[in-house]
Amino acid sequence: MELKVIAYARNGHTDKFGVPRQSREESPIETRIVFEPEYSVLEALRGIEGFSHLWLLWGFDKVDSWSPTVRPPRLGGNTRMGVFATRSPFRPNPIGLSSVKLVKVAYPRPLPEGKGDKLELVVTGADLMDGTPIYDIKPYLSFSDCHPEAQNGFAEETKDYRLKVDWDMCEPDYLPMLDRHWTDIGPITTRKWLDEVTYILSQDPRPAYQDDPTREYKLDYAGFTVTFTVKEGTAFVQKIEKM
Amino acid sequence: MELKVIAYARNGHTDKFGVPRQSREESPIETRIVFEPEYSVLEALRGIEGFSHLWLLWGFDKVDSWSPTVRPPRLGGNTRMGVFATRSPFRPNPIGLSSVKLVKVAYPRPLPEGKGDKLELVVTGADLMDGTPIYDIKPYLSFSDCHPEAQNGFAEETKDYRLKVDWDMCEPDYLPMLDRHWTDIGPITTRKWLDEVTYILSQDPRPAYQDDPTREYKLDYAGFTVTFTVKEGTAFVQKIEKM
Repeated sequence: MELKVIAYARNGHTDKFGVPRQSREESPIETRIVFEPEYSVLEALRGIEGFSHLWLLWGFDKVDSWSPTVRPPRLGGNTRMGVFATRSPFRPNPIGLSSVKLVKVAYPRPLPEGKGDKLELVVTGADLMDGTPIYDIKPYLSFSDCHPEAQNGFAEETKDYRLKVDWDMCEPDYLPMLDRHWTDIGPITTRKWLDEVTYILSQDPRPAYQDDPTREYKLDYAGFTVTFTVKEGTAFVQKIEKM
Repeated sequence: MELKVIAYARNGHTDKFGVPRQSREESPIETRIVFEPEYSVLEALRGIEGFSHLWLLWGFDKVDSWSPTVRPPRLGGNTRMGVFATRSPFRPNPIGLSSVKLVKVAYPRPLPEGKGDKLELVVTGADLMDGTPIYDIKPYLSFSDCHPEAQNGFAEETKDYRLKVDWDMCEPDYLPMLDRHWTDIGPITTRKWLDEVTYILSQDPRPAYQDDPTREYKLDYAGFTVTFTVKEGTAFVQKIEKM
């Protein structure tokens, strides 16, 4: 079967670093699913507003080989697991699966510089990089898809792992410049940007095997670069710069 | 992207009629996921036994066109909904998504007539026809995939619809011949076959718009043909014949 791209994801994750490793209900990160012209058909979404959650099937970018075993980042990067026991991209068919919350259907409208005149879905909670191709959108059916008692295998132990996030070192000098900043993907407010970056840092974007408190990491998100360090379970934001 | 078939589903649903319309936790229907030689690699499943549920991504057979709107069977077959608000096969990329319960990993072993010497996963709850191509297998992660509070849109009203199933007309003459019947997909016991067929009938396999109590329907399942009628919310099994 040959897959056709029906839409592209647009969000602040212009770089792979920092993209969440799984979709999560609590993630405030907003992603726009912008339909390609052939699929920008309003009636194809009839009834979708009745669903609170959706499935996205999407393509892992630039993955063209698979491996029977992979090293899940959450296991420290040294333990090998079977690829079908993980959500790793290095699969025979590199298709990702994410459940997201539907915020709204955005109708075609004129935007500055001609951006955004296609049909869109706005969702939160995705684990997608900006520009990710979308192959399918399905309604989430709780009676088929929800298994609260499911056993999560090796992923169970690390599922609640989070960093604290400390902004004290960079406030308040850098923040005003964020307000109403117009990014490639639309307007963003300081409050929203802070919420989203705090979430991203709390997920610990560092490579699994690194734990050097002096090392500076740079996260690009929605037009700004955030420099941070991590020490004893806390991410310390050092500065924010315009990209 | 070009998808490769990694496995095929094998079960008693040799005919499309009666295949459940969604995967369901309570379904007793057992399906074997038989890996193709290239993917019949035991280490690709390392750690999978720790997961109670899996996702299957699979191909809708013989679907090569899509429609912006479709008529969900559960809405009576007359109401049109947007294809992305349904799990209909008539999608731009006809990929199905089903969560199933993992029963076991079945290791290569010799079986009569050389059948079953490939690596397999045995699962229950699938909504797949025998021979369905499988494109991916992923672990179910409850912290990402489970949303008990999800709103099911138009599917909410009909999700608990079931038929009662009455076997009184055909017992006990036909049942003994079932015991230990060896089918194409392996051995099946009377008890198991009855459980599975009872479940299939309870899901009401009739086309949505039909409600004629005199009409006889024929369900082919695991080597036997079941003739039944439906009257006032009950499926009455009339007879069982060897296919």
